[in-house]
Amino acid sequence: MNWLLPDYLADALPLEAAQIERLRRLTLDLYARHGFELVMPPLVEYLDSLLTGSGQDLMLSTCKLVDQLSGRTLGVRADMTPQVARIDAHLLNREGVVRLCYCDSILHALPADQAASREPIQLGAEIYGHRGVEADIEVIRLMAATLSTVGAPADRIDLSHVGVFRALTQAAGLTPESEARLFKLLQQKDATNLAAACADIAEPWRSAFLRLPGLYGDATTLARARRELPALPALAAALESLQRLADAMPELPLSFDLADLRGYHYHTGVVFAAFRHGFAGAVARGGRYDGGGTAFGRDRPATGFSLDLRELARLAPQLAPRAAIAAPFAEQAGSPLAGTIAKLRAAGEIVVEHLPGAAEDSRCDRRLVRNAVAGASGETDAQWIIEVINRG
Amino acid sequence: MNWLLPDYLADALPLEAAQIERLRRLTLDLYARHGFELVMPPLVEYLDSLLTGSGQDLMLSTCKLVDQLSGRTLGVRADMTPQVARIDAHLLNREGVVRLCYCDSILHALPADQAASREPIQLGAEIYGHRGVEADIEVIRLMAATLSTVGAPADRIDLSHVGVFRALTQAAGLTPESEARLFKLLQQKDATNLAAACADIAEPWRSAFLRLPGLYGDATTLARARRELPALPALAAALESLQRLADAMPELPLSFDLADLRGYHYHTGVVFAAFRHGFAGAVARGGRYDGGGTAFGRDRPATGFSLDLRELARLAPQLAPRAAIAAPFAEQAGSPLAGTIAKLRAAGEIVVEHLPGAAEDSRCDRRLVRNAVAGASGETDAQWIIEVINRG
Repeated sequence: MNWLLPDYLADALPLEAAQIERLRRLTLDLYARHGFELVMPPLVEYLDSLLTGSGQDLMLSTCKLVDQLSGRTLGVRADMTPQVARIDAHLLNREGVVRLCYCDSILHALPADQAASREPIQLGAEIYGHRGVEADIEVIRLMAATLSTVGAPADRIDLSHVGVFRALTQAAGLTPESEARLFKLLQQKDATNLAAACADIAEPWRSAFLRLPGLYGDATTLARARRELPALPALAAALESLQRLADAMPELPLSFDLADLRGYHYHTGVVFAAFRHGFAGAVARGGRYDGGGTAFGRDRPATGFSLDLRELARLAPQLAPRAAIAAPFAEQAGSPLAGTIAKLRAAGEIVVEHLPGAAEDSRCDRRLVRNAVAGASGETDAQWIIEVINRG
Repeated sequence: MNWLLPDYLADALPLEAAQIERLRRLTLDLYARHGFELVMPPLVEYLDSLLTGSGQDLMLSTCKLVDQLSGRTLGVRADMTPQVARIDAHLLNREGVVRLCYCDSILHALPADQAASREPIQLGAEIYGHRGVEADIEVIRLMAATLSTVGAPADRIDLSHVGVFRALTQAAGLTPESEARLFKLLQQKDATNLAAACADIAEPWRSAFLRLPGLYGDATTLARARRELPALPALAAALESLQRLADAMPELPLSFDLADLRGYHYHTGVVFAAFRHGFAGAVARGGRYDGGGTAFGRDRPATGFSLDLRELARLAPQLAPRAAIAAPFAEQAGSPLAGTIAKLRAAGEIVVEHLPGAAEDSRCDRRLVRNAVAGASGETDAQWIIEVINRG
């Protein structure tokens, strides 16, 4: 039973691997045209570096091993975002705006859910060095373009801003424990227990917390929020940022949910997630995480998104495999057959040389055959012609 | 010091990453045109499966971790070849010839040498299901084409055949200990100690072993070997195979070395390695390893090659980074500026939108500017024109 793989790990066989590779190229080319530069951080790093600035969640999902050279604990990356922030902060060390993208395997000690792989291929793009909401607009558009480019456009893009909840908890003077309890109830959209948990909170904060779960829907949600929530500067600024996103991107299916606090402990501003009908979880997600490079010596504003390319490859329309041309094996260099095969390949055709005794590859819909008539006039390239294979 | 990486591990920054990605595409496209199908086995597997059929070397170079789901020991792959053999033997389970290729990171517990990375990107191609030397010819040609395609053609391709040494040790009735000692001395080309070690071996085997280190050079080496080595059927068959390679591929810089026993414990027939001037180690290597799938339930003949794409990316000529076009930030969807930028990107241009206040990207040699004259006639796409940036 040596061929059994651990649970939640799988081979990508030819059809799936071709789809992943095709989408990898489409999306990395898209990012390149937008000025994003590809980086490839290492598969393993010292555990401390990998977990810098991140929470306990990442610690638990990171596989550990011992470095035979240093004796220190290494982690197999469970998320490339801290690695890319490290590259921006330290290695590139450029002033101003830096746009980076990445696409590589990460490893999770446990699957994120029953349908998830423990080896997602994390594809993402990040903008460092710009505090303004323009960078958020650029990455949200790029996330939407990623999905459109592969033929699986987002049906809904949820936007939120961690500043709304944060402004309210600060103004209400909540203890960390109360904040954590409210946070959890809002995430679970548990209205009953939320009311009980808010009982001791003074007005107007109590009402504000209770209204948060109802503040979702189209861009008019933002006008409602301005009317219904207290006029705190930080909260007003958060709503203003969301309004700019709404105004700038009428072309996208934006939706707002002010109680959506995904990534609250990590994010510092706008957060967003893209959804497809018929697919439960978010297809792609991201947000602003200013200060992510602080642990690496430079405090840099940052915003970006990422997704699992394996998941995207399953969602996106598949292309039919390309048909191939069967050819006899061209053992001898410089033969007319070898020349004909080389020309066909240079023109982009798939040519499968059939090793003596082997059956013809089922992918072939044409074959190279010797043209008996031309053959009489001597050895020239023209003696090999393409014949359609009729399997009818 | 969170940004320090473990020794022999490094980030690929934008220039290097772009080069690796470019060569990845060139080579995988080459393999696709030759009918090889891409597969992507997982980063980690049960240690038993990863080491199946391989030697102690792979055991030592494989990093281990504990599977939180099964409690079993997992290994991070240190070589993808056994994984790809598993895919051929079990998952695809096709009769006849199967051609597979792969390109992904592997991890070595210790670096192979002082200049090596502990995270090579293993790129390779394998043919399963054909015992004849034609498959060896095909993969050697493909290895040579890999190097030519990336602009770093092989200066020398060394060929050998493990059947020569194996036939002699069997005929001479060597103990495993004697065989291991001779093997080591031949690898080290240690003529003095070889003579001493062969003192007890009967003729004609003693002379044959002593002649092996001298049997290297061009294709005439094979004729010399036929004259100078004993007429054993297995030895004659090995020489015959090498002669067919020499006859079929006069276009390649083939060289023969009958004492070259790299991969002896793993390989079963022809072995080969490609070299470049000024680069000490082999750039690519491979050989025949029939029976590699036996541990996975199917005995399949196999031959193939692999290389480290990171190394190849350093060897191969670099392309200058592509110049980009600077544009003002197009916040508003549907604006003439946004339309102009979209058209340029659709035509393949890199357009970097400059976030308010950010300096112009140094990669830009042109910029989008508003054409004052056309601007008077109203808001049309034509109002944005490309201006060359003069940094003189």
